Formats: sequence, C-alpha cells, structure tokens
Amino acid sequence: MRRKLLSDGSKEFKYEIREIVKKANQLKALGLHIHWENIGDPIEKKCQLPSWIKTIISDLAQQNKSYGYCPSKGILATREFLCEQNNAFGGAQITPEDILFFNGLGDAISTAYKLLDPSSRVIGPSPAYSTHSSAEAAHANSDPITYRLDPANHWYPDLEELENKVKYNQNIVGILIINPDNPTGMVWPLEHLKKIVDIARRYRLFIISDEVYNKIVYNGAKSYSLAEFIEEVPGIAMKGLSKDVPWPGSRCGWMEYYNRAQDPQFAAFCEALDNAKMIEVCSTTLPQLALPLIYGDSRFETHRLESNEKTGKRSALINSILGEVPELMFNPTYGAFYNSIIFRDGVLNNKQTLSIENPKIREKVEEWCKGVSPDYRFVYYLLGATGICVVPMSSFCSELQGFRITLLEEDDEELKKVFNNLRDAIREYVKS
Amino acid sequence: MRRKLLSDGSKEFKYEIREIVKKANQLKALGLHIHWENIGDPIEKKCQLPSWIKTIISDLAQQNKSYGYCPSKGILATREFLCEQNNAFGGAQITPEDILFFNGLGDAISTAYKLLDPSSRVIGPSPAYSTHSSAEAAHANSDPITYRLDPANHWYPDLEELENKVKYNQNIVGILIINPDNPTGMVWPLEHLKKIVDIARRYRLFIISDEVYNKIVYNGAKSYSLAEFIEEVPGIAMKGLSKDVPWPGSRCGWMEYYNRAQDPQFAAFCEALDNAKMIEVCSTTLPQLALPLIYGDSRFETHRLESNEKTGKRSALINSILGEVPELMFNPTYGAFYNSIIFRDGVLNNKQTLSIENPKIREKVEEWCKGVSPDYRFVYYLLGATGICVVPMSSFCSELQGFRITLLEEDDEELKKVFNNLRDAIREYVKS
Repeated sequence: MRRKLLSDGSKEFKYEIREIVKKANQLKALGLHIHWENIGDPIEKKCQLPSWIKTIISDLAQQNKSYGYCPSKGILATREFLCEQNNAFGGAQITPEDILFFNGLGDAISTAYKLLDPSSRVIGPSPAYSTHSSAEAAHANSDPITYRLDPANHWYPDLEELENKVKYNQNIVGILIINPDNPTGMVWPLEHLKKIVDIARRYRLFIISDEVYNKIVYNGAKSYSLAEFIEEVPGIAMKGLSKDVPWPGSRCGWMEYYNRAQDPQFAAFCEALDNAKMIEVCSTTLPQLALPLIYGDSRFETHRLESNEKTGKRSALINSILGEVPELMFNPTYGAFYNSIIFRDGVLNNKQTLSIENPKIREKVEEWCKGVSPDYRFVYYLLGATGICVVPMSSFCSELQGFRITLLEEDDEELKKVFNNLRDAIREYVKS
Repeated sequence: MRRKLLSDGSKEFKYEIREIVKKANQLKALGLHIHWENIGDPIEKKCQLPSWIKTIISDLAQQNKSYGYCPSKGILATREFLCEQNNAFGGAQITPEDILFFNGLGDAISTAYKLLDPSSRVIGPSPAYSTHSSAEAAHANSDPITYRLDPANHWYPDLEELENKVKYNQNIVGILIINPDNPTGMVWPLEHLKKIVDIARRYRLFIISDEVYNKIVYNGAKSYSLAEFIEEVPGIAMKGLSKDVPWPGSRCGWMEYYNRAQDPQFAAFCEALDNAKMIEVCSTTLPQLALPLIYGDSRFETHRLESNEKTGKRSALINSILGEVPELMFNPTYGAFYNSIIFRDGVLNNKQTLSIENPKIREKVEEWCKGVSPDYRFVYYLLGATGICVVPMSSFCSELQGFRITLLEEDDEELKKVFNNLRDAIREYVKS
C-alpha cells in the first residue's frame, strides 16, 4: 500500500472469549477433548430450544414477508409490543420512535461508541465485557476507562471510585451498567443502581444499561430495568433475544431511548444512531417478526422459570465444589450464566504447572506461557492438562487474576465431573 | 450533557433512499397511494420467493443448531463451499480463512471504512451508492471522493479522471468498484475492469468490489467477478444473499480477501476486520446454514435465469417508454435492478411544478421544495402529484440532476401504468 491503511484505534479490537478458541482448537487437533466453558451460548451447550418456539419461526419462514427488508428502525408492530412491555413498568415512558433494532447487541454496541466524539468517554465496569470495552476503547484510540466491581463485596460496583473518576475526569460523558452482569454473574441491588443514576444526574451524564440477561435471574434475585429507576436522566437500555429465547445466532437486539427530550445533545446522539442504521438499510427481519409471538406467548414465562431454575441449581452445585477452596475468592452468582473466580493475592506465580502427558500439547502450552500474566498461564495449563477451556480474568480489563466459567452445561454429571476436575487442577497447580 | 457527545464524522450518515420514505409516508397519511420505486427490495415489490427455498429455511428452523452462535468468521462448511465456487473461476485463489461473514453488506461496508485511518481514503463511483459513500465519508470526517460514471458513455467509469485523482491525491489508498452498478444498472466491460486493476497496481492501492448484484444480469450482459481479473493486486470482494435469493431481511453478506500475502498492511487490514467481527461474536447463523443448500441446488440457476429474464423485459419496457423523451439522458440497463435517469442540462429549474389537487399535499410539497436542488424539487412534485416515489440523483453524491427508479414491479400492467404516468409527469413538469 502506498500509505498507512489502519486507524490507530483498530488495534483495540480484542476478544479473548473467542481468541482462546483458536488455542483450544490447536490442542483439539492434537487429540485433546475440549470442555468449552468459555462462551455464553446455551445452544452450543446442548440447551434444547422449546419446540413451540422453533415452530413459530419455522412457520414464519414459510411466509414471503419474512424475507424482505424491514423498516430501518425495526418492524412497527414489534416496537409497539416492546413499548407496552416497557411502559407497564410505570417508569420512563417511550413510544415506538424510541426503539431502534440492531443486528444483535454487538452491532448496537459498536455503533454507539463509534458515533461518540473520540474525546468523550463512557466508563464501564471492570471486570469488563470485551464487546463494550474494546469498542469504547477503539473509538477513543485509548485504553478503556473502568470502575471497579469488588469481589470482596459481592462484585457490587465501587460507587466511591466511580464518582471520583467521573468527578476528576471531564472526558467521561456516560456510565455503562451491565446488569445482570457478564462476567461476574451478579445482579445489582436497586439501591446501587439508584446511586449510579444520581451520579449521572449530578454530573450531567447519560447511562447505557446492557440488559441482555435481564430475564435470567435465579436463586431469589430480582433484576431491575433501567426504565424503572432512571427517572429523568437520559439513557439507553440495550436488550436482545440472544440469551433468553435463547437465539444468539439471530443477531437481534435493540436499544430503547429514555428521556430524549431532556438534553439536545443526547437527542442528537439518538438521531445519529437512527441514521447510522439507516445507511445499513435495516436489521434482521425474521427475528423481529418472531419476537412478539415468542415473548407474548404464555409458555414463555414457564420456559424462563424452568431454565432459570436449572441455572440456579448449577450455580449451587458449582458453589459446593469451588466455594470452599481457600486460594479462591468465590462469589455465588444470581444472574446471567457466568462466574468470575479470582485467585487470592500471591497464590499464582510464573512457575506453577500442571502435568501434561502428551509432549506435543505440553510443548504448545509452554510456548504460549512465555511472558503472559499468571492467570493466562493457569488457563493455558488448565486447557492443556484437562481440556477445560475458560477465559482469563485479566483479559476482561482487570488486574484481578482469575478466570471466567459458564453455568451452561446441561448434563449434570458432566458438570460435576468438569468442576471437580477444575477444583483438583487448581489444587495441583497452586501446590506445584 | 456536560461535554460534546457526537463525533464530527457522524453527521455524514445520510441515506436518501430511506429518507424519502418518511416524506412519502406523510403523504400516504393524507390519503395518497404510493408507488414505491425507491428501494431495491424485491420482496416488498411482491416477488414470491420460490417455495423450495422457503422449505429449506423452514426445515432449518426446526433444528436446534440453527439458533446458536456460529464461528466468528462464519460457518466453516459454508466458507468451504464459497471457496470452491470462487476458485473454480481459475483466478485469485482463496481458502476458508480468506472469507469473513457479516450481518449483510451494510455491516461489512461500515466496518471496513471504520477501520481505515481517517486520512486514508477510498475513491468510489459517482453517482454513489450511499451506504458506501456515507460510511467512507464518515470515517474521514469529510466529503466522499468520487470518480465519474459517464451517462453520455453508457455510465462507464471515466478512467482518465480516476487515474488523475489517484495520481494527484496521495490520500487515496483504495478504489471501490460496484459491478453491476447501483444506481445506474450498468455492467462494466472486462476491459474497463482490467484498467482499474492496472491503476491500483501502479499506484499500490487495494480494490473493494461490491458484487452483490453479480448474479443479476440480463439482456445479454456478463458480469465479471473481482477474482477473475484482479491478478496479484490485493482486494476484497463483497457478496451477499440479499438480492439474488432474494433475502434482504437475512442480513447475510461476506467478504472474500484476495492476495493478502502481497502486502503486509493489507494483510493487517484483513486481520483487523476479523477482529472487529470477533468482538461482535459472529454474524447471522441461519442464512449461513441455508447458503450452500440454496446456491448448491440445481433449481437455483433456473430461478435466477427466470428472474433475470423478467427484469430484462421490464428494462426493455421502460426503455420503450422513457428512452425517447428528448429532455432525458437515458441508458438501457443490463444488471442489478435500478436505472438512473438524468435530465439534460438546462431542462430543470426552480419554478417548475405539477398540479396537485389535494391542498394539504400541495402545501407539504411546496414546503419541502424550499431551497432544494432542482432534482429534489422534481422528485417531491412527482411524489405529490402521482404518488410515484423515486430517489433524487443529487443524493447519490452527484451533480447530475435526475432520479433513480427500480425495475422490480412484478405486475406488468402496473409497471406500464406507473412508467407512463412518470413520462407524462416529466412532460408536464418540464413544460410548466
């Protein structure tokens, strides 16, 4: 090329949740059986979609209308349906004009940050979900700006740190909430959420609330939607079909804009989002047609209750296996389907190993471990020795050393086996 | 907000093809019947998808695997299928690693330009297809850079202008080809395409070739794929399911990278594209599963031949109605399903009108016409007087005054009526 092709920000696009797959596949090719605990795809983990949902979609696929473009903002009847659902909370009220569909929240997220001025920043939780933190960092050609979730306090947000960062960094224009949270599996109390809104109000910020796991709570937890506590602060909720139907392959998510009229710059931001989607014509049609038929079906609530109960049981089982390991900081989870498990300070070092019989696998693992942080080292040895594929915590914009697991294994015996192996591997590794 | 929210480039997102819909809907609400000639959606124009295609997709929707995430780059078997198709040309050879799936080409296009350095520009044809030109302009926070398609020479590219712009503007790093072309409906000869590749080679540029209409040619035309003529120059072909299945609502398109090894910067660009998709996890799964089943079915070729023949007949009918209007520069079309029709210099002015009986509609039209260019004025009067909704040519980054129509009307009598009305309206307007 005769001149520089790539923008400086483009190097910020990293996604360890999928990067680890490449390494696992290299070991798979060497004969290792992989237990995929890295990705939040219930379908991959053999969750069977209820047949009534498949029938709805299969029937729609027989109709011509399912194949065309839809309106740029999304199908009107679907947006009307979602308005009713949101407005029934009795909180922030919206019209169909306040909803914009995307090709999944990945699309929504990268579009949102791309439109912001490079010097205007959104602060998000750490451990951070990479789709948010990478896209936000790339727009600013910088590192992500984060507030701490505290593993010593149920992974709740450190509100004092959040307020200080907002107060002393004028570039921050927005606060990101992910609730229920990925990667910690925590559901934030209403009190904390209200305090975040109060910070946004006092410093004139907007809020982004990623609520894709909103309907996935268990073991007694309740998850609040942004509309319920935002009052008059401008904000955007992000919702989608990926996790609760679950239909991650649909690439169907949407934004709901709250309180657009409160601030002309925020209103212009929402309009720019609409326009950015318009130049791509529209988002996926078939899932939007299916949405009111699925969410509006009386069987959906039962489906969610049953699924959540299963996830809750898995959470309890994992608690019973890993909760008492003295080298770990372990928090029981209440929402989404992940847990972030942290090694206590000083537990990990750069010399620990697990025994790996296959010399080719051992060679690979040793090669990967050169110069990486201690939790990457643990994750690579764990993968090589047991085939268990998890994501290192330091890849979630965190200095904490640990790893993320999923709560998706449908086979209880397999789940027990994998997590017992994981516990044994931790014991062996830290003692090595 | 306490500081500036929007980036300067975000105002570049404009898409007149959909903007006009908002105006048409205002008139529809006043009782006007609208003939939608603005958008390239065959389904909207009552094209019936063959039932065998609907059955393939409906059957897939009964299977659990259709609902999960897929690999970030796309389903491997589908990429292998596409490799075989491409490599059979005998031109540039690829592997599945050279293919990356997107949520339609809108997504591919906005991701590609977003990753380029803001000072590095891609020159594209004018009249320009807005999804490309808006996204490219937004990345550079500037106006689009274009080379002229010449309506006096079959809408072929002005290669002398293209080379001079490349030669005298060091910021240009790439050349965009859209072939068959939207909005002109022209199919470029191999000789012209080879000359564009030669310019790219001599000035060390890469090529983007939008081939979404590649299988839509008629009345004797043949369309060449980039792989057939690119030789050793680095380039990206963009392809999709939207127009030839047609399944625009699927949001399923892909890139094929050619000659990555020829240039390290181009190789890094392709890797950055892969990474940008990875942070969104993946693209739509169901259409990728359907792709080899549709394209690999022996009925597909027949389906395309029949559809193309129908489009060719409509093209001929429109030629017979509009081809001899002396005020127009009219070119018969050979591919895609649009025609760009230009008023000769001096034909339009800012005083011409059409009679509009409904006073509320007339009032709206008069209001919209304040301060707009002459072709917008014509388009608004045409819409108000006849309900025919077309797109003004000056919205395609062109100084030419005219409008784009579609060749999609399935009902021949309706087609005849609409285009006769259009011709009569042109006559009335230019004489007014």
